[in-house]
Amino acid sequence: MRNIKIILEYDGTRYDGWQKQGNTANTIQGKLETLLSKMTGETIELNGSGRTDAGVHALGQVANFHTESTMKIDEMEKYILTYLPKDMNIRYMEEVPLRFHSRLHAKRKQYEYRIFNSSKNPVFERKYVYHYAEKLDIEAMEEAAKLLVGEHDFKSFCGNRRLKKSTIRTIYDIQITKVGKEIKIVFEGEGFLYNMVRIMAGTLIEIGKGEKKPTDITSILEGKNRDLAGYTAPPGGLSLKQVSY
Amino acid sequence: MRNIKIILEYDGTRYDGWQKQGNTANTIQGKLETLLSKMTGETIELNGSGRTDAGVHALGQVANFHTESTMKIDEMEKYILTYLPKDMNIRYMEEVPLRFHSRLHAKRKQYEYRIFNSSKNPVFERKYVYHYAEKLDIEAMEEAAKLLVGEHDFKSFCGNRRLKKSTIRTIYDIQITKVGKEIKIVFEGEGFLYNMVRIMAGTLIEIGKGEKKPTDITSILEGKNRDLAGYTAPPGGLSLKQVSY
Repeated sequence: MRNIKIILEYDGTRYDGWQKQGNTANTIQGKLETLLSKMTGETIELNGSGRTDAGVHALGQVANFHTESTMKIDEMEKYILTYLPKDMNIRYMEEVPLRFHSRLHAKRKQYEYRIFNSSKNPVFERKYVYHYAEKLDIEAMEEAAKLLVGEHDFKSFCGNRRLKKSTIRTIYDIQITKVGKEIKIVFEGEGFLYNMVRIMAGTLIEIGKGEKKPTDITSILEGKNRDLAGYTAPPGGLSLKQVSY
Repeated sequence: MRNIKIILEYDGTRYDGWQKQGNTANTIQGKLETLLSKMTGETIELNGSGRTDAGVHALGQVANFHTESTMKIDEMEKYILTYLPKDMNIRYMEEVPLRFHSRLHAKRKQYEYRIFNSSKNPVFERKYVYHYAEKLDIEAMEEAAKLLVGEHDFKSFCGNRRLKKSTIRTIYDIQITKVGKEIKIVFEGEGFLYNMVRIMAGTLIEIGKGEKKPTDITSILEGKNRDLAGYTAPPGGLSLKQVSY
């Protein structure tokens, strides 16, 4: 038995997210499992480091699968790239120790949220940025971001209101940079709740617009109520950038 | 009467090219004329610096139109951006002297052809690059490009075999650069024949692959026969970059 790790890139626009669900074959995981099963002649289960929502992209999703196939890694990569849809790519593949698990062993994840902050149209990037024309106060957004960093109960930033498990998470860093018309927010944390990055992005945008104050973050966190935070920013602006082990 | 100049960006993927043709409303020119006519209440005719083929993009297409509207330029821009499809953008608009004509007065045009030269998939750029996996010899392509520069009869590089007009054109410069997996060929000339840039790109690719020699350019030019040159490279890799006056 071998364990194969893959680093993946994909444009999430036309998929129903990462995770295979019931009848829906139109997921990243579903497409890849079908292809890997065909390649090996086995029934392959692919573990992803985490689920990306419908429409969310990945620059560095990590996944792994077990196989008894004796194919060489570069032959596997060649086979997969021949049949893979053009909106997915394998950045890297390697054989790893049998116990490696892409989700259970993930230590840190980095997501980036891209905002095209202009009245102009982001013609060539339009599927990978959130087009937001109104002026945003970056300094206010940075002040708010600092209050999100650290270990907190992020219940107010969780899209699943009925989650029974712990909603305590640690965010290591949030960096906001503006280059030209684009504002990029990079979130780094041990892990994120359902829709958490998009709700943080939406909340930071409302603060940038002046609808909320940076210091509101404290009361939003304390309130532990989804209704206190901002809106869920659209999926197209979000990419899973990197997973560290 | 006023004369308005527009610098346009567009993703040509879903359009039947620049030029309005018969019943086909699905052209860049057609979409813009409809919008400008609605805005002004007049029947607007929009002159483009040149036609881009179906699927070809533009980073800096230039167009102009005459109007009796008294709207301010920034109001026009705001109106247009409100209704413009998201795969088009106005980079710049200004009022120019009445006699300015975007096509007749164009002195130089720059086109760029982008090749993604890798077995990997160009996930996020896939509609704007030509994905070509086999190895290309850049030095051979550069040697061939030098032979295309200058004033020549480009009949062998003209997609319209029945063209009665002169097929003599001047190319000022061809620059080939490779950054990472991408090879970019920038063509600068006074003007180009139908499909000429794509046929030059296809011919340079055949030379890069070793199917033709760099010195074949001389006999291809001399032969004045479309069959001697290489294939017409696909439209998605091509963008009209800049028009100079």
